[in-house]
Amino acid sequence: MPDANSSAGSGARLRALGLEIPTPPKPLGNYVEVSQTGSLLFISGTLPIANGKLAITGRLGEDLTVEQGRKAARLAAMNALAAAQEHVDNLDRVKKLVKLNIYLAATPQFTDHASVADGASDLFAEIFGREQGHARMVSGVASLPKGTPVVVETIFETN
Amino acid sequence: MPDANSSAGSGARLRALGLEIPTPPKPLGNYVEVSQTGSLLFISGTLPIANGKLAITGRLGEDLTVEQGRKAARLAAMNALAAAQEHVDNLDRVKKLVKLNIYLAATPQFTDHASVADGASDLFAEIFGREQGHARMVSGVASLPKGTPVVVETIFETN
Amino acid sequence: MPDANSSAGSGARLRALGLEIPTPPKPLGNYVEVSQTGSLLFISGTLPIANGKLAITGRLGEDLTVEQGRKAARLAAMNALAAAQEHVDNLDRVKKLVKLNIYLAATPQFTDHASVADGASDLFAEIFGREQGHARMVSGVASLPKGTPVVVETIFETN
Repeated sequence: MPDANSSAGSGARLRALGLEIPTPPKPLGNYVEVSQTGSLLFISGTLPIANGKLAITGRLGEDLTVEQGRKAARLAAMNALAAAQEHVDNLDRVKKLVKLNIYLAATPQFTDHASVADGASDLFAEIFGREQGHARMVSGVASLPKGTPVVVETIFETN
Repeated sequence: MPDANSSAGSGARLRALGLEIPTPPKPLGNYVEVSQTGSLLFISGTLPIANGKLAITGRLGEDLTVEQGRKAARLAAMNALAAAQEHVDNLDRVKKLVKLNIYLAATPQFTDHASVADGASDLFAEIFGREQGHARMVSGVASLPKGTPVVVETIFETN
Repeated sequence: MPDANSSAGSGARLRALGLEIPTPPKPLGNYVEVSQTGSLLFISGTLPIANGKLAITGRLGEDLTVEQGRKAARLAAMNALAAAQEHVDNLDRVKKLVKLNIYLAATPQFTDHASVADGASDLFAEIFGREQGHARMVSGVASLPKGTPVVVETIFETN
């Protein structure tokens, strides 16, 4: 039933995809995971954390493949969803992803940022629907907190 | 007629300046060029693309001069305007540029980020008027998608 | 009187802490320090400037300690408050810090971004209260304008 699916909320889509939201991330310092202003949720940078631990370290263009980067980006994106869900209680209240910023720990020679970032974008497209995509920015930086290869930074809109 | 000019919309100013908006950029991955929330347009990172191709590659502080960087920033800014115009149909509907983030591929030794970024800021000031400037952030990163030396990231406000 | 303190505005808290807002920063190029849209204030990147001069230069992981980085972050945050206050006249009108982005000039090996960023976050928590924290993103980049080790980028919400 594609009609039912397309009208379903983001929480329902997530369940239909069989995806399980991880434990919400904890701040690494003196800040909070979610800051709301009006209908916008600004989510702090989220890392590829599973079971409370950084699942992967390294640098794109050096010791990580694009495929490893994609998986890290997807996992970091799942943590962003976990933070958003904890804030709104029911993910159905999150209408869409407005903006995605992805920071990669990468060498000066690395050029395939877009493929890595799609690890996060593909997940968000599955959940919020391709008809209302998100704006995106990707950059390759020198280093990121705790040696993570990827940080995902998001702005969601609530109903 | 300075009065008429100052009250003109951004589309009219653009035409008065003899500037031609390029073909709107295409996403490099699974995202969209423009994401609207309320009156704000979040534009994805835009590159110095002309005729569908990256017009320049390289790194500030290494193989690109500040002047080359400025031209790249201006061209990337034109692509942001093209994305915004495609979304709103008539650029007169864009009231102002709220925020500009510029990412430069730069060496650790490079210090003249502000001059390069002015290549974009000068264009936006010409179009939206100096009386309502934009906030700005510039950083020098390790690498950017496709080897571009500059990415421009913008938030516009619509009427 | 903790009750009185918790209901006090951000300007009153700042005075109670004995902190003095520095001279508002001046743009390094063709932009403005504060751009308002609705109730949001987008502040341009602010540097650790005191008495009109960059108080510190260098790179985290190379020639700056974490403690030096923290002080630089706190000073850059004070400059962001100065910019906001100049825009709204009375800092009590600033309700909270919505979002904090911190950019560090850092080596690829640096991993303690969170501790440095807390130099800014701790200040904001003192002023806006821990009960309404801010969302945060920290990255380590190759280089920043004028050789500054830290830039603080903020979005505030006004009453």
